[in-house]
Amino acid sequence: MSVGSDSYEAPLADMRFLLGPMGALSASGSVSDLADAVLDEAARFAGGVLAPLNMSGDREGSVYSNGEVCTPAGFREAYSKFVEGGWNAISCHVEEGGQGLSRALSAMVEEMWRSANMSFSGCAALTRGAIEAISRNASEELKRQFLPSLVTGAWTGTMNLTEPQAGSDLSAVRTRAVPHPDGSWRISGQKIFISWGEHDMSGNIVHLVLARTPGAPEGVKGISMFLVPKFLPNGRGGLEKRNEARCVSIEHKLGLRASPTTTMVYENAQGWLVGEENRGLDYMFVMMNEARIAVGIEGVAMAERALQRAARFARERVQGSDAQTRGGGRVPIIRHPDVRRMLAWMRSHTEAGRALVCVTAAAMDIAADHEVEEKARAKARSLVDLMTPIVKGWNTEMAVDMASTGIQVHGGMGFVEETGAAQYLRDSRILPIYEGTTGIQANDLVGRKIARDGGVAIRAVIVEMRETCETLRKAGSEELAAIATALEESVGSLEASVDFILRTFGLESARVLAGAVPFLRLFGAVAGGWQLARAAGVANALRSRQEGDPRFMTRKIRTARFFADHVLPLTSGWAHAVQRGAESLLEFDEEMA
Amino acid sequence: MSVGSDSYEAPLADMRFLLGPMGALSASGSVSDLADAVLDEAARFAGGVLAPLNMSGDREGSVYSNGEVCTPAGFREAYSKFVEGGWNAISCHVEEGGQGLSRALSAMVEEMWRSANMSFSGCAALTRGAIEAISRNASEELKRQFLPSLVTGAWTGTMNLTEPQAGSDLSAVRTRAVPHPDGSWRISGQKIFISWGEHDMSGNIVHLVLARTPGAPEGVKGISMFLVPKFLPNGRGGLEKRNEARCVSIEHKLGLRASPTTTMVYENAQGWLVGEENRGLDYMFVMMNEARIAVGIEGVAMAERALQRAARFARERVQGSDAQTRGGGRVPIIRHPDVRRMLAWMRSHTEAGRALVCVTAAAMDIAADHEVEEKARAKARSLVDLMTPIVKGWNTEMAVDMASTGIQVHGGMGFVEETGAAQYLRDSRILPIYEGTTGIQANDLVGRKIARDGGVAIRAVIVEMRETCETLRKAGSEELAAIATALEESVGSLEASVDFILRTFGLESARVLAGAVPFLRLFGAVAGGWQLARAAGVANALRSRQEGDPRFMTRKIRTARFFADHVLPLTSGWAHAVQRGAESLLEFDEEMA
Repeated sequence: MSVGSDSYEAPLADMRFLLGPMGALSASGSVSDLADAVLDEAARFAGGVLAPLNMSGDREGSVYSNGEVCTPAGFREAYSKFVEGGWNAISCHVEEGGQGLSRALSAMVEEMWRSANMSFSGCAALTRGAIEAISRNASEELKRQFLPSLVTGAWTGTMNLTEPQAGSDLSAVRTRAVPHPDGSWRISGQKIFISWGEHDMSGNIVHLVLARTPGAPEGVKGISMFLVPKFLPNGRGGLEKRNEARCVSIEHKLGLRASPTTTMVYENAQGWLVGEENRGLDYMFVMMNEARIAVGIEGVAMAERALQRAARFARERVQGSDAQTRGGGRVPIIRHPDVRRMLAWMRSHTEAGRALVCVTAAAMDIAADHEVEEKARAKARSLVDLMTPIVKGWNTEMAVDMASTGIQVHGGMGFVEETGAAQYLRDSRILPIYEGTTGIQANDLVGRKIARDGGVAIRAVIVEMRETCETLRKAGSEELAAIATALEESVGSLEASVDFILRTFGLESARVLAGAVPFLRLFGAVAGGWQLARAAGVANALRSRQEGDPRFMTRKIRTARFFADHVLPLTSGWAHAVQRGAESLLEFDEEMA
Repeated sequence: MSVGSDSYEAPLADMRFLLGPMGALSASGSVSDLADAVLDEAARFAGGVLAPLNMSGDREGSVYSNGEVCTPAGFREAYSKFVEGGWNAISCHVEEGGQGLSRALSAMVEEMWRSANMSFSGCAALTRGAIEAISRNASEELKRQFLPSLVTGAWTGTMNLTEPQAGSDLSAVRTRAVPHPDGSWRISGQKIFISWGEHDMSGNIVHLVLARTPGAPEGVKGISMFLVPKFLPNGRGGLEKRNEARCVSIEHKLGLRASPTTTMVYENAQGWLVGEENRGLDYMFVMMNEARIAVGIEGVAMAERALQRAARFARERVQGSDAQTRGGGRVPIIRHPDVRRMLAWMRSHTEAGRALVCVTAAAMDIAADHEVEEKARAKARSLVDLMTPIVKGWNTEMAVDMASTGIQVHGGMGFVEETGAAQYLRDSRILPIYEGTTGIQANDLVGRKIARDGGVAIRAVIVEMRETCETLRKAGSEELAAIATALEESVGSLEASVDFILRTFGLESARVLAGAVPFLRLFGAVAGGWQLARAAGVANALRSRQEGDPRFMTRKIRTARFFADHVLPLTSGWAHAVQRGAESLLEFDEEMA
């Protein structure tokens, strides 16, 4: 019985297919030599340095003692290598000292870090978020003092939002900031669930803290953002003294155990206002949209890792005989139809999620490209806005399901921690929760992203989906035609649900909100199926032109077909729940719920 | 923020409704005073003695040292109380010293043990299985020596099936048994994943071990069952010496940590043949069918416990304002439509699962009742056979989903172990695996339970489902009519899938097996929806006669309606996967899967 080696191999073939022929990097369908080299190097670092620390990191966990947090063996060294390799800066703007890689490419690299070691990779992701918030909003002086070390990764960053009474609802934030005569502020309050709020991997930690200034308006319009470093800089590039920003405990969690989740106490800690007073939540939301994409990438990453381990196990584990050849010898379990179904379930969802990340990241690149005309940029922006809750919400719910399915493939061995499959379920379970729960993503989707613009953005996507169906039909392949039929039907379910939302939201928003998560599932599945269908079309064309690996192309087509037969037919059910699912819910009184 | 008290309150109202008006205990619909008293007492024991040890038991885990296993604090005392209270014997036959309670009633009591403390309750469940196997198959001498102490619970039992190379596939069992001149046998081999194979709660442990005798046929037809006690009895009611049956390690598991999962080594251990040589697997299968029902009960139990904690949290946790009354104050999260949806999702699945257990257990009672005429008994037997893989497979997949949804209701707190919600996910994850994975249940369902009898048993159920629809339509309630419509449609999907299975299985079994799990999901959902619909009809009738608690009756109707709107519409999608889902799977070669 094969018990967990911690190996991870980046799915480079699929990533290159998305970046190249699927057009995420450029309309030409080609991947530059630089991008190729980045992918190869990242794959080596992820597989060679980060992946081997994943299980041991989970077993040891980060340990709190006396205000300090000790990360698991090997994490400090790996982080040093990560910084030395220049990996921290790849997605930062060139003017900040970064490499300015496109979002589509950096998303693929990020997926590798997350797959290899989700706990480890969170630290650098938070730093990138902090860099973004500071570079967009902070004063030149703050940028000068803090950005360079954050960009290299010598210092790391955090986001401090949550308080015990303020989780999803940030209007309840109570942390206070009072002005100091020297122009800085004094911050006091308690923050919980702060990832990487304290650790031993970097020289300094820069906290971005939401707090209220004296006389600030109630609710979300009275929240400001402050930069509060662990060590105060001396103004000459070095560090002076310890700030009153202290970690008082870390959480004992289901998963992600190597990543310290801290409770931070600020007692008259020195900090600086970022941007303008009372605009903290706006700034945070910009970061949060990026963070939501990042969490969606984590979803794909966990699903991929779970798939790799399950597929390896299914090829090695011999058990039972072949259902088709009775009386034959014992076979690897991958020969059993239901094991194949589980692996295809995992592969199709994982690749759908990756394609959704890629298409969204490519739109982010277009939206940010000043050489593109404004109309196209605006269209790209609205696609990004629309897809963000799907990338976050659908990919993460999917990841939990895939990690759980991965355990199932292992049978009893899956329940034993040493096998490693269980860790993926434990780790992935946070994904549909942090950076906004699935319920919050779904409310954002139906309210801000669909009802608010009268359905313009989603109708544009529906048009593209139908175009994909037409393209597939024209290919003259029975398999592609079957995929097109399934996709068309599910697009019909999607459209009817969009109509319902637009008709109903203004009158009875609760009736729409009761079906918001079923709608997110519906739209996610249709969008994922659409991307897989596009991929099948592209793969079919390449195969007939004898370009690329024909086995890879065939697998892309089969994977799309599987999703079309096993997942897309469920969409009519979710559409029913969207449109009629509120009846039994809203009249329930609380004791009866 | 409310952090986990370990409270559990048995869902007595729903249990009494199923046993009484739903007819599981008797056609008269009444619950006897004795049954009532048993339910009340069991609820007290479960909530008062077992539930408080659930979290602490998980935290401590059972600990292995030097061949011995120490259970968590409080477990020994709780087990003594369990035995003293006579709980171990309630489902045993009267002639064996048990109380001979009906299966329907004992199933409800079992659910309470499982909900309160799944780890703890497994030990007694295994003992009951051993009692069953010994009393049906063993010699009078073995019964005399071993049954009385097993029935009281002074001794406990185990099932020893799995070996490293023989998991789901028992044909690969290698443990050997050689005859000894004194009429006993000497057993040698290694068994893994043996629940409660070693512990400190009872005076002796009686292992039922599958092994091969010299010259036995290859494969499953050459496996015999042996009784191998930890301590050998001295023939005078006492214990003599330690047998060579030793625990060499316990597993480090995702969940169920208080329940020791042992590796057992037998080195010329003394044992006795149970029944005839080479019939071990037959005997084990009889036990295993019972065990599968028991695991299905665990599924309901975990879902119920997760629901209780989530509903409590949702009533207490204040966050955000009401979607329907903008600008209002902050409200408990149970007011948010999606939180209600999650709780209704959990409640409806949990109650569907409980109803499936009850209807199956009631059929077991009829099948075992010699006063019932043979035709009715045969019909009941075939219902039990048909429903066993559903009760096991559907209820346990459902439990994992519900435990995961329970975490989601808690948001970030759900990921913190001290909250308690995460434990239910960890514990429940074994349920779709042990006693036969979901894939194995599904193969059993489509092969042995449907194709083999030409669909007779399932068609009889479909007829009953349609009768339920008719009854609901006649009630003159719009709500019941809506439920009937949804159920009718899903019964249509079920029937079409059954037709496909019957048409295809003999020709191309792999094509059916590729969709066996989707079929299990489909049938489980339709059967669960049917039971909820029946319940809605009964509740409606009682409410209109002003019998029972009208709020309870209304909730039963709403719960059925929710399931009809959110779950039953998915059945057409699963039916598609059953009938057309094999296309993309079977031609896959192994590297591509």
